[in-house]
Amino acid sequence: MRWLSADTPGALALDDRGVAYGDGLFETLRLINGQIRFLEQHLDRLEAGCNALGMTGVTRARVHRELTRFGVRQADADWIKLIVTRGAGARGYAPPRHAVATGILSSGVLADMPERWRAVVCDTALPDAGALAGLKHLNRLPQVLARMALPRDAQEGLMRDAVGDLACGIMSNVFVVVGQQVLTPDLSRAGVAGVMRRFVCDTIRVSTARVSRGALQRASEVFVTNALRGVVSLAQADGRTLPPNTPVADALRDALKAAS
Amino acid sequence: MRWLSADTPGALALDDRGVAYGDGLFETLRLINGQIRFLEQHLDRLEAGCNALGMTGVTRARVHRELTRFGVRQADADWIKLIVTRGAGARGYAPPRHAVATGILSSGVLADMPERWRAVVCDTALPDAGALAGLKHLNRLPQVLARMALPRDAQEGLMRDAVGDLACGIMSNVFVVVGQQVLTPDLSRAGVAGVMRRFVCDTIRVSTARVSRGALQRASEVFVTNALRGVVSLAQADGRTLPPNTPVADALRDALKAAS
Repeated sequence: MRWLSADTPGALALDDRGVAYGDGLFETLRLINGQIRFLEQHLDRLEAGCNALGMTGVTRARVHRELTRFGVRQADADWIKLIVTRGAGARGYAPPRHAVATGILSSGVLADMPERWRAVVCDTALPDAGALAGLKHLNRLPQVLARMALPRDAQEGLMRDAVGDLACGIMSNVFVVVGQQVLTPDLSRAGVAGVMRRFVCDTIRVSTARVSRGALQRASEVFVTNALRGVVSLAQADGRTLPPNTPVADALRDALKAAS
Repeated sequence: MRWLSADTPGALALDDRGVAYGDGLFETLRLINGQIRFLEQHLDRLEAGCNALGMTGVTRARVHRELTRFGVRQADADWIKLIVTRGAGARGYAPPRHAVATGILSSGVLADMPERWRAVVCDTALPDAGALAGLKHLNRLPQVLARMALPRDAQEGLMRDAVGDLACGIMSNVFVVVGQQVLTPDLSRAGVAGVMRRFVCDTIRVSTARVSRGALQRASEVFVTNALRGVVSLAQADGRTLPPNTPVADALRDALKAAS
């Protein structure tokens, strides 16, 4: 692998397959006092992605080392982003036989956001992911288009899959509390298998299921999750104002604090 | 716009949205004696793509000038590739308010290929493109995966859309001659609206329709097209050896020669 970041020399090749085809993966990791939260879980997903894309030569131990080294140097940062592309290659969809993957590291500080978010349901649908289901790959135009269409007073958009069921937020996974059940979309058609989604499913009983848009109207709580923001309760979803009490999300936030 | 190529200084920013999200478009253009074939048609598609992605600041006249200037310097090249990304941007799907698009130019020589190709039908499906239908955007992982799965003795793979009908080749559009009709997939769900496809449709009568995989078994001719290779007859498609006579494709190749 070839590693690039703002504080090391070296440039991204003009024929990097990341820019040519979105041929690669990424991870966005939460940094707390120089420590990466849920690092192993991020590495699990990255590894699954490398296998699905047939990207050999990306070794978990090496990525682990580069991420932790980079993390300790970012004293004031809240997040690290890692992009792993298949590397440089000649024109054409066929990857070169001996591609050298590119690792790009960056970091930054989280912008302030409201404690509870307003979310709309996006018109942009997520296409069927096929072999890419659940992966955090670099083909993100549906998310870009959905984000551009988001009203100014909404913090998140809920995206539907090809059959119209909820899949995930533009930058999050979504959970809907209906009666005694906590539901989350099954991601069989579309959506990213988020690291914070995994934490939630490991912490409380969650039914992974088809979740219709209509469920938002019956929910006692709706919350979204991602690696950076943790567990965020929605104040409004699909035009409906949600109840002020959020006992399920509150318990998860407590558990996350204890785990971090 | 900011322009990059191998023979000008300057590097691709590590936070270019092309690599982060595949947030951009590309064109692959045929160069014949320093002249770009079908330049206006390529610019038409690029312009449509910029409109669909909301990429302002990419002016047709500027792209025209850069491409022609670059072309005359590439005396021995057969092709130019142009990538246009939304440019650098902070982390997050929302584009920066004043993004400066990146233009990346490269060129090369065409590798030898057989005169007639063998094509298989790919297992990898093309997802529904939605607002991106027909565009040559940078989200190309389905093509990369399909190309990786191609048998060594096949030059092209025919890809199906989400409902199983033919959409296009991995790197081409496809035409099927059945009886007196020349059929090509309608691209309403998936596929790229190729510049050479447009030439064919402008030159002969073509029915733009749903085309099932089964049509390959009834065809008297199957040919694929792209900007670089022109019109290429298939010798074999989906396991079936096709007849040696290719009158429709022959006539198109003659017309293309006359137009180039």
